[in-house]
Amino acid sequence: MGWGDLGAFGEPSKETPNLDQMAAEGMLFLDFYTASPLCSPSRAALLTGRLPVRNGFYTTNGHARNAYTPQDIVGGIPDSELLLPELLKKAGYVNKIIGKWHLGHRPQFHPLKHGFDEWFGSPNCHFGPYDNRERPNIPVYRDWEMIGRYYEDFKIDLKTGESNLTQLYLQEALDFISKQQASQQPFFLYWAIDATHAPVYASKQFLGTSQRGLYGDAVREIDDSVGKILNHLQQLGISENTFVFFTSDNGAALISAPKQGGSNGPFLCGKQTTFEGGMREPAIAWWPGHIPAGGVSHQLGSVMDLFSTSLSLAGLQPPSDRQIDGIDLLPVILQGKLIDRPIFYYRGNELMAVRAGLYKAHYWTWSNSWEEHGKGIDFCPGQSVSGVTTHTQEEHTYLPLLFHLGRDPGEKFPLSFASEEYQRAVEHISGLVQQHKATLVPGQPQLNVCDQAVMNWSPPGCEKLGKCLKAPESDPKKCSWPH
Amino acid sequence: MGWGDLGAFGEPSKETPNLDQMAAEGMLFLDFYTASPLCSPSRAALLTGRLPVRNGFYTTNGHARNAYTPQDIVGGIPDSELLLPELLKKAGYVNKIIGKWHLGHRPQFHPLKHGFDEWFGSPNCHFGPYDNRERPNIPVYRDWEMIGRYYEDFKIDLKTGESNLTQLYLQEALDFISKQQASQQPFFLYWAIDATHAPVYASKQFLGTSQRGLYGDAVREIDDSVGKILNHLQQLGISENTFVFFTSDNGAALISAPKQGGSNGPFLCGKQTTFEGGMREPAIAWWPGHIPAGGVSHQLGSVMDLFSTSLSLAGLQPPSDRQIDGIDLLPVILQGKLIDRPIFYYRGNELMAVRAGLYKAHYWTWSNSWEEHGKGIDFCPGQSVSGVTTHTQEEHTYLPLLFHLGRDPGEKFPLSFASEEYQRAVEHISGLVQQHKATLVPGQPQLNVCDQAVMNWSPPGCEKLGKCLKAPESDPKKCSWPH
Repeated sequence: MGWGDLGAFGEPSKETPNLDQMAAEGMLFLDFYTASPLCSPSRAALLTGRLPVRNGFYTTNGHARNAYTPQDIVGGIPDSELLLPELLKKAGYVNKIIGKWHLGHRPQFHPLKHGFDEWFGSPNCHFGPYDNRERPNIPVYRDWEMIGRYYEDFKIDLKTGESNLTQLYLQEALDFISKQQASQQPFFLYWAIDATHAPVYASKQFLGTSQRGLYGDAVREIDDSVGKILNHLQQLGISENTFVFFTSDNGAALISAPKQGGSNGPFLCGKQTTFEGGMREPAIAWWPGHIPAGGVSHQLGSVMDLFSTSLSLAGLQPPSDRQIDGIDLLPVILQGKLIDRPIFYYRGNELMAVRAGLYKAHYWTWSNSWEEHGKGIDFCPGQSVSGVTTHTQEEHTYLPLLFHLGRDPGEKFPLSFASEEYQRAVEHISGLVQQHKATLVPGQPQLNVCDQAVMNWSPPGCEKLGKCLKAPESDPKKCSWPH
Repeated sequence: MGWGDLGAFGEPSKETPNLDQMAAEGMLFLDFYTASPLCSPSRAALLTGRLPVRNGFYTTNGHARNAYTPQDIVGGIPDSELLLPELLKKAGYVNKIIGKWHLGHRPQFHPLKHGFDEWFGSPNCHFGPYDNRERPNIPVYRDWEMIGRYYEDFKIDLKTGESNLTQLYLQEALDFISKQQASQQPFFLYWAIDATHAPVYASKQFLGTSQRGLYGDAVREIDDSVGKILNHLQQLGISENTFVFFTSDNGAALISAPKQGGSNGPFLCGKQTTFEGGMREPAIAWWPGHIPAGGVSHQLGSVMDLFSTSLSLAGLQPPSDRQIDGIDLLPVILQGKLIDRPIFYYRGNELMAVRAGLYKAHYWTWSNSWEEHGKGIDFCPGQSVSGVTTHTQEEHTYLPLLFHLGRDPGEKFPLSFASEEYQRAVEHISGLVQQHKATLVPGQPQLNVCDQAVMNWSPPGCEKLGKCLKAPESDPKKCSWPH
């Protein structure tokens, strides 16, 4: 989902009344970022509070390449990483993930081995359907074991776009909240639904209801679901005791637009890029009775802050034995403070850009390669900024491209290298980069090796269902990451 | 000002609290259009309820050329046109225009000859400063006579961007409203301020207050002024008796961005073009006690509707002896109805595109000529849609380019000519075009002839001020309209 997909963020069809209402009752973040323009690294960053280059969710197979966790990925979240639910457990929280885990699917990476108590969802994206010979269909887990596979037991009709998955994930959320409320135990719910990822789907009741086509139907279903979750919290009388945050893991995938991709509003390009369209996200904090209604914040925020903020809410300290990139947003949310901090835009192993205040310096620019572009893969359809949306990896480390995101949120007009404003801003940002790089200890890259043998052939529980498949011979290779 | 310039429409800096509040208390129009991508024709359309091609505010000097009323224009609003204030007068309204008239500056075109009772403002844009030899500075009128000139008596400091014009126009509005309230006479105030037109200016108190630079400062001053006007109506106890509508006369001038130009949000291109960025406008209706708060409408609306709606509010009928293009929006505003009607996108003498429902068909596409583009004049900076943002005038009358503005508000993905959806939508729209063209009687074009002798050399009142200038010999020529 992209920054521009919600009515509150200016989507012209304005079809998200529940999220808009959530914003009206809570705080809207206009300058909130994910930690990577791609899903897996973003989610790893959210749960560890650390940049992907630290927690291992990146690749060194190529320079500045986006990588994630497809079925044949060998790596996953390292045991050495401390995840938010592991820490919350110490404060008595019951932790549940609903939806896409995406931090590795081999046994050692299972979410219940990394702090979660319950899981309903899948380890990978809902791509498919597969033939179960070349490639198995993605399993859906309940807790430790699989209970079926996408396209087999959990239907997604690619022709009509119909699937009731979001409804299943919604019901699971409502039930978990009710159960926790009944047992009076504090809880952390990571509602990490697959929608609106391509292939896009929506439940029957939402199909055809949006002005925006199938993608809009999916957005409407998410909006409706969020409304139902918030309403449930209110009905149970625990809304004033429950902090809720809504955001997305990367910008809208314009490559799938218009049928399967959303909107990044006025921003440049989309998912896979380190332009604003790839990493600036819709974000809303909600906590009635605590967050003043109708608040708007220009705090530079990050999904990694949800780690630190959640710990703070639980009265816990972040781990002191490692670098944490997230910050505690409670002073921002509760007292309207602004905390000075930069945003680092990474693509794989490369720091592509840095934002400080309203300035953003690009040290590298790249949309995608000419080769991929020639195949019709376009991360910036209809947009082309000379020297900026480049199709070769362009280095600007000696003379960064500088944009003022207030005057030019669309990154279309680089500042003159000769201007005093340029000198001042770049000097400041270069200092931040030096400081950042001096202390950076990259983690062991987890997304380098792929092997067909590790795909979801026989996940735990497959025997009971008669759904075990024979794995092929192990044949580990460097994963190919074209972007 | 463009669609994307207000917080309520998704401007990322969200610096328009008063206009956003106006929307929250009133009705937000998301699909509201001007009648031309340029100022003069739009304003002529607003005041006559008729398309520029009917009321004469267009040129036939070239095909599909935008034209306006520079100082040397010979034409202006024809006597045969009936303007909104002329009609409102019959119902006892006192009519005032504050700001830019732009419907011709020769004596016969004076606003007080066309229904207005009072005027404070200028006949033309605040371009300048001029040397008063080649070209006189633009006069500022109070009612029948000039009281000074821009850059001389009404300062605009192009270096700092400082000018108190918006404050003068605000005070004039507040005073007029007070006076009318005191005298218990109904009034029509056309608050047609020059800001945010380039050269952009703001008052000292607003300079440097926006994240968006000088342009944002000007937007903030307008926002603040609107807030003060609405507050004044409330203080006087007449807000429930006063209908207020906020909109703009064309999309943001991206050619002046980022320093002097605004935002058209997710839309394609800007001012001068018939893409959404050129003609879709921010629009808010406000009338406490009548318009339900927080309303949002997808009615296809037009500035011409303000003519018909205002007449309806005054209990008057629109003239029956001529074609009126505006419709009465009261059923939309007060009862939430949706009225089926198309939007016609004209550029000069050519019908470039038509919107019906969510479909928009382009019969002609053009951004600007290669020649102008080569000079750095770009109406679509950073945007380029192959075959759409063309630099030659491309005819598509036999096979229109069709967009679905719900799925693709940015006009980036034309529908396949072969699709059933295309066939159905184009058939419908072509029927509307036929109907429209069959009854169209173009007016005498007013914007064809320019003459240096008609410039504002010696406007009425210049003698008293010692500001009369000697006009050169008359030398009428075809005006040159490159766009």
